[in-house]
Amino acid sequence: MQSGVQPPIGAVRAAVARALDEDLTPLGDITSALLPPGVVGDADFVVRTAGVLAGVSCATEAFAQVDSTVVIDWAATDGDDVDAKQVIGHVSGPLASILTSERTALNFLGHLSGIATFTHELVVATGGRARIWDTRKTTPGLRTLEKAAVRAGGGANHRGNLSDWILLKDNHLTVLGIEEAVRLARTRWPARTVHVECDSLDQVEEALRAGADALLLDNMTPDEVRSAVALANDTDERRPLLEVSGGITRETVRAYAQTGADCISVGAVTNSAPVLDIGLDIEVS
Amino acid sequence: MQSGVQPPIGAVRAAVARALDEDLTPLGDITSALLPPGVVGDADFVVRTAGVLAGVSCATEAFAQVDSTVVIDWAATDGDDVDAKQVIGHVSGPLASILTSERTALNFLGHLSGIATFTHELVVATGGRARIWDTRKTTPGLRTLEKAAVRAGGGANHRGNLSDWILLKDNHLTVLGIEEAVRLARTRWPARTVHVECDSLDQVEEALRAGADALLLDNMTPDEVRSAVALANDTDERRPLLEVSGGITRETVRAYAQTGADCISVGAVTNSAPVLDIGLDIEVS
Amino acid sequence: MQSGVQPPIGAVRAAVARALDEDLTPLGDITSALLPPGVVGDADFVVRTAGVLAGVSCATEAFAQVDSTVVIDWAATDGDDVDAKQVIGHVSGPLASILTSERTALNFLGHLSGIATFTHELVVATGGRARIWDTRKTTPGLRTLEKAAVRAGGGANHRGNLSDWILLKDNHLTVLGIEEAVRLARTRWPARTVHVECDSLDQVEEALRAGADALLLDNMTPDEVRSAVALANDTDERRPLLEVSGGITRETVRAYAQTGADCISVGAVTNSAPVLDIGLDIEVS
Amino acid sequence: MQSGVQPPIGAVRAAVARALDEDLTPLGDITSALLPPGVVGDADFVVRTAGVLAGVSCATEAFAQVDSTVVIDWAATDGDDVDAKQVIGHVSGPLASILTSERTALNFLGHLSGIATFTHELVVATGGRARIWDTRKTTPGLRTLEKAAVRAGGGANHRGNLSDWILLKDNHLTVLGIEEAVRLARTRWPARTVHVECDSLDQVEEALRAGADALLLDNMTPDEVRSAVALANDTDERRPLLEVSGGITRETVRAYAQTGADCISVGAVTNSAPVLDIGLDIEVS
Amino acid sequence: MQSGVQPPIGAVRAAVARALDEDLTPLGDITSALLPPGVVGDADFVVRTAGVLAGVSCATEAFAQVDSTVVIDWAATDGDDVDAKQVIGHVSGPLASILTSERTALNFLGHLSGIATFTHELVVATGGRARIWDTRKTTPGLRTLEKAAVRAGGGANHRGNLSDWILLKDNHLTVLGIEEAVRLARTRWPARTVHVECDSLDQVEEALRAGADALLLDNMTPDEVRSAVALANDTDERRPLLEVSGGITRETVRAYAQTGADCISVGAVTNSAPVLDIGLDIEVS
Amino acid sequence: MQSGVQPPIGAVRAAVARALDEDLTPLGDITSALLPPGVVGDADFVVRTAGVLAGVSCATEAFAQVDSTVVIDWAATDGDDVDAKQVIGHVSGPLASILTSERTALNFLGHLSGIATFTHELVVATGGRARIWDTRKTTPGLRTLEKAAVRAGGGANHRGNLSDWILLKDNHLTVLGIEEAVRLARTRWPARTVHVECDSLDQVEEALRAGADALLLDNMTPDEVRSAVALANDTDERRPLLEVSGGITRETVRAYAQTGADCISVGAVTNSAPVLDIGLDIEVS
Repeated sequence: MQSGVQPPIGAVRAAVARALDEDLTPLGDITSALLPPGVVGDADFVVRTAGVLAGVSCATEAFAQVDSTVVIDWAATDGDDVDAKQVIGHVSGPLASILTSERTALNFLGHLSGIATFTHELVVATGGRARIWDTRKTTPGLRTLEKAAVRAGGGANHRGNLSDWILLKDNHLTVLGIEEAVRLARTRWPARTVHVECDSLDQVEEALRAGADALLLDNMTPDEVRSAVALANDTDERRPLLEVSGGITRETVRAYAQTGADCISVGAVTNSAPVLDIGLDIEVS
Repeated sequence: MQSGVQPPIGAVRAAVARALDEDLTPLGDITSALLPPGVVGDADFVVRTAGVLAGVSCATEAFAQVDSTVVIDWAATDGDDVDAKQVIGHVSGPLASILTSERTALNFLGHLSGIATFTHELVVATGGRARIWDTRKTTPGLRTLEKAAVRAGGGANHRGNLSDWILLKDNHLTVLGIEEAVRLARTRWPARTVHVECDSLDQVEEALRAGADALLLDNMTPDEVRSAVALANDTDERRPLLEVSGGITRETVRAYAQTGADCISVGAVTNSAPVLDIGLDIEVS
Repeated sequence: MQSGVQPPIGAVRAAVARALDEDLTPLGDITSALLPPGVVGDADFVVRTAGVLAGVSCATEAFAQVDSTVVIDWAATDGDDVDAKQVIGHVSGPLASILTSERTALNFLGHLSGIATFTHELVVATGGRARIWDTRKTTPGLRTLEKAAVRAGGGANHRGNLSDWILLKDNHLTVLGIEEAVRLARTRWPARTVHVECDSLDQVEEALRAGADALLLDNMTPDEVRSAVALANDTDERRPLLEVSGGITRETVRAYAQTGADCISVGAVTNSAPVLDIGLDIEVS
Repeated sequence: MQSGVQPPIGAVRAAVARALDEDLTPLGDITSALLPPGVVGDADFVVRTAGVLAGVSCATEAFAQVDSTVVIDWAATDGDDVDAKQVIGHVSGPLASILTSERTALNFLGHLSGIATFTHELVVATGGRARIWDTRKTTPGLRTLEKAAVRAGGGANHRGNLSDWILLKDNHLTVLGIEEAVRLARTRWPARTVHVECDSLDQVEEALRAGADALLLDNMTPDEVRSAVALANDTDERRPLLEVSGGITRETVRAYAQTGADCISVGAVTNSAPVLDIGLDIEVS
Repeated sequence: MQSGVQPPIGAVRAAVARALDEDLTPLGDITSALLPPGVVGDADFVVRTAGVLAGVSCATEAFAQVDSTVVIDWAATDGDDVDAKQVIGHVSGPLASILTSERTALNFLGHLSGIATFTHELVVATGGRARIWDTRKTTPGLRTLEKAAVRAGGGANHRGNLSDWILLKDNHLTVLGIEEAVRLARTRWPARTVHVECDSLDQVEEALRAGADALLLDNMTPDEVRSAVALANDTDERRPLLEVSGGITRETVRAYAQTGADCISVGAVTNSAPVLDIGLDIEVS
Repeated sequence: MQSGVQPPIGAVRAAVARALDEDLTPLGDITSALLPPGVVGDADFVVRTAGVLAGVSCATEAFAQVDSTVVIDWAATDGDDVDAKQVIGHVSGPLASILTSERTALNFLGHLSGIATFTHELVVATGGRARIWDTRKTTPGLRTLEKAAVRAGGGANHRGNLSDWILLKDNHLTVLGIEEAVRLARTRWPARTVHVECDSLDQVEEALRAGADALLLDNMTPDEVRSAVALANDTDERRPLLEVSGGITRETVRAYAQTGADCISVGAVTNSAPVLDIGLDIEVS
């Protein structure tokens, strides 16, 4: 595991409380309430399909919020490669508490590990020649957790939100023009990254002249990207970071990784990753 | 559109406020803040890939919470089939407000329409012979909205949460046995659906004798399901609703739909649906 | 105590935090702040009038949120019959913390035990011939806790909320008719209880024909209920659960319990139960 | 209506949002969702039993939060005497919205009007010779609304919470003594009411000498109260306000009102008031 | 330290959670995430400028919410005089956790100690002849904590909020007149402090006749205050508490303290106190 | 007014709701409740001391949340220079609503305008030769609003929070070294600003070699800063932004502005700005 992948614990606490509330209001787990008191259980978190793990702190928190006597031991953590059938953690405690928390814990684990896994597949596909970047196309309410999952998968985080840095898109540029927009951004927001969307090589040249910190090469072919890279490498200014984006998939990512661009951003890692199948095999003691 | 697909507006308000807060804290949209005041814009919501729409009330709310002077007119609503390139709505107002709300609105629309679309594909695949049912495998914090999106896609909602009805799973049954579990459930929770997971035909027979309202036929082959259906049709008691579940996919759903089972539950519709690609084409006035 | 009566702990935490905030904002307990530091106390929770206990987890939480060094030992728990003068728990710790938490703890205990006690009186009055059912006539913001208190009193929980099951009332039926309403409900919401309000024996017959899961016999005399029971017992379909409701009181509940109806719902158990008088006898050490 | 009885609107908004969330999560009103779109209705709020109205702003807010197109006209307001069969308000709008909001609106109206009505009965019983005072024995989470309902019923509000003023109870006095406690309170909390609990006439004399602003005469007989009143009327200091408390009921309140005491506090008005029966008679257009 | 200065812990928890959320959303402390796991640190809270300490419970809570393994030992507490270079507390634990919490802890400590320090300067300036009183001019969202800081500085708390007691200001008096306003206040709000703003000696006489509990002598010169004091000392009624207010500063406070007035209220202690400079000197182990 | 100074409206709504709740719980404005219904008023926001305005949207929101019938017209807005005695806005509506909202509105206006004013003084003192930058030394819970107020005063916003960009401080550098720290930051967080604290000219040289985007020159004299500027101007890499910080005051800011540094960060603008005195002159109609 690389360090720094865990999400802030305050975000974990709030998200888990919200999820448990969804699942338990208004009457609680009315099925497990049928169990006689005192029945305890043991359970293994078992991976069904290989992938990359994320969401461990959420799963821990789900059990802790339901019943602080439940004990969890993890054998793997966020960012680890996990194999099918691998036991990644063990839970023991009152059976009713385990059953009540199970789905919430698994929903977090599955969703976030799904994101880590998809990210990692793209990372592998790049052959180390470019970074995989996420986007602001996250699931509403889960951005903090999803961006941590991207890091767990070996990806990097693009802007966290609209207040992070300046990203001048086509509509901003229509109003302001690239040169004026970059100048304004530098003046109003000193030291912040100024990032410019370029839909053509002309715009690339203009953005290079304006001294942008990063260029977003949108919807270009690999060859167009290569031309943009050449222009950027030639600049007298500091070579900006080059991002490519626009419908890039598992199939096309390698081609873009070989262009010399630095980052490939893929909205799908957060908004279209299928869940990683992880289950909880419970045994009644 | 069928009626009753809209989620409760209180859930919409809270989810949108949370999403905007994620995107705008702490400094707001620092790029759009560069625009001169008074610039207005017009924009079309345009579908990029055909599918089923959901999340319209969330998108409306996103613009309303950012700037109440933005005007939206929708040409389609939740549950509608939408085609690639179809304009489904129009927005006009201050350009900065449109740009600030855009991603939040699209994240809801894309995520929820993705669920509606995936659901609808499965619904179509059943040929009308069985209902597609969602599960509790929802994205944490978004269950209310996602279950509404399933309805928009023509699916039906299984349990809303653990407090909705009794679903006796393998671990409950290990402790209590089917007969005693059903008896206890009827006593403690009068009038609530009592649903029993069955992993074998023996359990199906036992659950039928116990008078369960619904049977969850878990991880059975279509032929096993057919045998279970035959047993259920033969019962002297009221024939219970028959649900099949367990890794059912776009490919296998039709085979299950032809078994005579009533409902096919698929966790993937809420936890693995790719986003439906919807964009906002903005024009500066 | 029967199992399953405790409310979800997340609901307890939130309700207690809200109540303490009501009592301590903005300056805290300004009287207890006059006490010198280091004064400790011991206190007994003492029942003033016999009844049934509920709300123990709320009282525990109230002390814990104010001062985690306060120690509580309970000698009784939710669902227990308690007698006048019975000591049901003991608290020890800093006197100021005990005094600061006292009223909040007692407000929960008294309110919820009042509900459990009233429920239990009705349960006893039925002589075991029918179940006492609560309603959605709960105190705003406390439904989860109040429904748990009803269970503690030996009652059962009707719908938790409007999303739990289908209850077709007179206005719905005016628009749709019983047969069509039941059919629609079955189609749209598979496996959910379909419950039909009947104000006359004609409606009872119609609802039986429609195959409703439960009938709400509203504002009928015991004799009318008996006729409805006879009709239901005669049905070729599965005999639905029969609920009677409408202004039933301590005085009239027995007569209805002898009709053969299954459940008697009484809004008063949650919206008109007087508090159970429980006090905290504190001794300064 | 006297002025000043309405609760702060912020408290109303939050309490109503919480109550609607309780009733509509996670799937909304699944019964009303069966209605065809476009059906509208008209409804009258009708009082079933005479009493005093409270909670009108909550009922208004419940409809507004569900559907801003619903129109409400009130013919009565908080603090008004209302008779059985009196129509106190009219609602019109989409039938589904009316049905969805109905129970929440009625729960507030019934609960708060119940408090106003009970308060008013006690006020009438005093014959105007003493004020009826509420206590901190309120329903957790609803203190602001319940204290407003007490005002609507003609009662007055005692301390709003532990931070409002100094109320030295037996345990505080055991540690500090009356004289020292009053002195400390005056020093630490200038200008705040200093209120002393007295369980005996000796304590009354001591509290009078200490210059307390108010005395709480706890669990005294009317004759003992009369003696305390005589002592207080005789003081050279400003005569403090005299409160009587301790299990005072509808039956005994008049006797206490005739003692010369100023305020009679009754916890039951907020924690044991039965609901006032108010219904919504709906007609489908 | 005097007792009773700590704010309610619930308010501390909520304010700290909000502050951490401000500082860590959406990606956490991305700089400290670069540190290798396992690096631990030790740190001293060191006062840079002498003053009075406040906010210790907030600082403790900030570390606890980020990482429960961080250990803090305090050598001083709220209300203590602290000197430049004094070490007031020690923190040890994972370096990344210390760095992540540092600014939030210091922001609370600095802001609240700034208020305590400013308050204390004014308290000292009065020479013990009058109390320093705060106002409702607090920083939005922090009233509970700021009022506790005023107590830590030796000041006293005026009204906590608009619901605490009656303060009749010029506009209220324009409508009602002093006599009628005091009468109404006494009737509607028994036992509550009735406080009257007086802008002239005529109004002082009128308020004395009306029997107000406290007078706010607004914007008077010390000599005018002395005249008001003389009038009050002469009254046949109980001498009310006398407050002076209106732009009183470090320079003028002594003159007012010598007038015989009881309390001097200064909005600046909460809305204009500069931060007390406290730092955290961290050493990597 | 420059554009882009308004804070996100969602943050305004939440902060105002919190502030009103502080001031009105649990009983509301009990003084204004004494006024007869129907009394209306007119009021002018009047500046008492010249400065720069901020917080207008908060003041508007305070009145709107209390009473939507109150009408406000502003004659000035955030970022405007305002003079003593200048009328900056007018309010009219029910007198009680105006009085209830007054203090909350003024607390926001005064606090935020105080920040804008202090910022502006420093901006003027620089003579346009350097930007004034805020810090993370903000009042807990108000960062979004305070950073907007800094913009209103003509200052610029440094990092919004710990997740915005990389700022390597002494403790990070002790562990990692400058070169390695910058390298790691570039790898893990592509395109984000990498900012390095330098306490000596040796560190400046090292940071220049490492290619940092910005240098924080901490606690240097103006002459030391000048030497650092010279080194930076000489670099072959892109000249980084140069920030000076460390106890810079109104008195010393000009000297630093003349060194050639780009930004001067001053924690005091947000944590030690005295309030700008703005009042509300109310007239009863």
